Amino acid sequence: MSEPFDISLVQRGARLRRTPYFKATQRYGAKGYTVYNHMFFPINYDDLEVEYWKLLNDVTVWDVSVERQVEITGPDAFAFTNLLTPRDLGQCAVGQGKYVVITAEDGGVINDPVLLRLGENHFWLALADSDVLLWAKGVALNAGMDVTIVEPDVSPMQIQGPKSKEVVHTLFGDPVLELEYYFFLETELGGIPVVVTRTGWTGEVGYEIYLRDGRYGEELWERVMDAGRPYNITPTGPSDIRRVEAGILNYGADMTLENNPYEVGLGWLVDLDQEAEFIGKEALKRIKAEGVRRKLAGVEIGGRPLPFNMTKWPIYHNGEQVGFITSAIYSPRLKKNLGYANVPVELASLGSELTVFAEDVNEERPATVVRKPFVDPEKEIPKS
Amino acid sequence: MSEPFDISLVQRGARLRRTPYFKATQRYGAKGYTVYNHMFFPINYDDLEVEYWKLLNDVTVWDVSVERQVEITGPDAFAFTNLLTPRDLGQCAVGQGKYVVITAEDGGVINDPVLLRLGENHFWLALADSDVLLWAKGVALNAGMDVTIVEPDVSPMQIQGPKSKEVVHTLFGDPVLELEYYFFLETELGGIPVVVTRTGWTGEVGYEIYLRDGRYGEELWERVMDAGRPYNITPTGPSDIRRVEAGILNYGADMTLENNPYEVGLGWLVDLDQEAEFIGKEALKRIKAEGVRRKLAGVEIGGRPLPFNMTKWPIYHNGEQVGFITSAIYSPRLKKNLGYANVPVELASLGSELTVFAEDVNEERPATVVRKPFVDPEKEIPKS
Repeated sequence: MSEPFDISLVQRGARLRRTPYFKATQRYGAKGYTVYNHMFFPINYDDLEVEYWKLLNDVTVWDVSVERQVEITGPDAFAFTNLLTPRDLGQCAVGQGKYVVITAEDGGVINDPVLLRLGENHFWLALADSDVLLWAKGVALNAGMDVTIVEPDVSPMQIQGPKSKEVVHTLFGDPVLELEYYFFLETELGGIPVVVTRTGWTGEVGYEIYLRDGRYGEELWERVMDAGRPYNITPTGPSDIRRVEAGILNYGADMTLENNPYEVGLGWLVDLDQEAEFIGKEALKRIKAEGVRRKLAGVEIGGRPLPFNMTKWPIYHNGEQVGFITSAIYSPRLKKNLGYANVPVELASLGSELTVFAEDVNEERPATVVRKPFVDPEKEIPKS
Repeated sequence: MSEPFDISLVQRGARLRRTPYFKATQRYGAKGYTVYNHMFFPINYDDLEVEYWKLLNDVTVWDVSVERQVEITGPDAFAFTNLLTPRDLGQCAVGQGKYVVITAEDGGVINDPVLLRLGENHFWLALADSDVLLWAKGVALNAGMDVTIVEPDVSPMQIQGPKSKEVVHTLFGDPVLELEYYFFLETELGGIPVVVTRTGWTGEVGYEIYLRDGRYGEELWERVMDAGRPYNITPTGPSDIRRVEAGILNYGADMTLENNPYEVGLGWLVDLDQEAEFIGKEALKRIKAEGVRRKLAGVEIGGRPLPFNMTKWPIYHNGEQVGFITSAIYSPRLKKNLGYANVPVELASLGSELTVFAEDVNEERPATVVRKPFVDPEKEIPKS
């Protein structure tokens, strides 16, 4: 185990929260932490490429407690949650999850959580990095619905990779093998209350364990490590290489409040035909009818392997800035630089040629619009 | 200038935003960055005590672009903004600012921004670390008011310390000397549009310059450095030593959504007598009538100088945990460890004896409730 990262370089006082697994992540040598939903998020223990191959070949465990939950309960919880998202939650059974967007009145994306339906009127939203708790409380204020909205003591971890099935089987037995994609199980592990979901941020086989009582963080972590040792389990950060290969978006980078779902390829999360009202319905109807002006396109970027982009690199066409790269990263197995380009729709068609200024290496690079996801689509995330 | 901090230890992709002064902060040797409102926040360039003395003796400049603005305009902007905060904004003139809290329906504190009134129906809220943009948009949804709510391109910097007056005088001339506490001036600097306020997070003489066009970040920074050089100006992070001495609170550490203003000594920001409705009025009336159960008390903590607390240290009384320290830090001029203790109201009276477990040094320490602010109150922030 390497020397832990000096957290004092990021922390200042007790403003930012530590996860229930924080001490474990330090002990296992987390080298860097970012901040996400006002909480520390371990982003790597080793070289990103080493972690990528661990994910592809074995099994990895990530502390994603930063996926904070918004819990919605009360007699009107179903109607209220349905109001928050353009997906038709009538299609979501108790025990099932859905990938959803939360939209503003103008159709802008506020967040893209995984929604879990724990009861007829009991929902969790496992959040990307924005305060949906405040948004939901604000909406509820004058909505005339009877709901309770809180952030519960729930801290997920991801178990991802081809051998993840063996690990969760060891931990939770046969029932977990029955889980279909995006379904979940409420269970416990030696008295530790958890929810196990078949979800993840990779396009690989994967699960998440939602710890329901933060006091057991250390114990759960070590139980997972024990169960995973025969399968070469390794604590890592999320793999941006793998998620870009799979065409998965990162809120804040690849989409923000400025983007609507259609622009970023998430139109399949908008059920305009449902009878129920939802926030943004009128705007999204209009946007769909008019067609989008910009699009997030997959691109291959030429030249030597690029580092993961730290800024939104400008894109040029005929000498004029026309957009920006939201994510760019080198895929070691495809041996190509992959990325997402936010460009005018007329430059987003396959084969379109662009020029990228890769700020992090101070170089101009040619880029071509290609199909995404970048790896075999049949291996990719089913639309659930 | 020292070696800049390796931002890749905190950054992961282009999710987090850089400020208009980011390159300057790197060039001037920022050593650590935290994340605040989804943006990088330089927290130190040198030892915290060295930066403290610079602030006390000379003048310091801080990149506080992370104080993102929520801008509220439109015909109902006054009424809507008044709805968001318990302060009576009828008492806030155009050209004046106010320190306010934003409260939830249960009276919990959502944020404690500086509010600026730029016009009859034009407000900025300079935020602490929470997405008030989402809260305000959610509230507006069914409020039946005609308002526009955006995050404008506005990036403040703080100029703090006894020689700050000379620096802003050099930059903006005589009009800035007339500014009363919490008032502001809309002006420009060689064509760069700015708002200059007499505000700050120190209890020292201080100003903030709100840059209104991010393209000029580098130029504004260097103009400030040039004007400040005769006064020994130094880029620093905010001084937690000085702000704790002054009794100033840090949202997320010293108060959260779980606290109401009365608990944390911000009852003076609640105008229950105004006729206008505001969110949380009923709850705060009840809380005031019943009296609070917990209080944030000033404490002196015994023993050797303590490091700035990175976690909320537990507080014990008669062997039982009764609360926690939200901020604790050593004051080099008072030669004492100062802190804020969240404790039951019956243990919050002056002279009350407590035991603190200082997690960061793994030591038990005695603590005594004392008056705050900890330094001469007549030097402290007037209640504006």
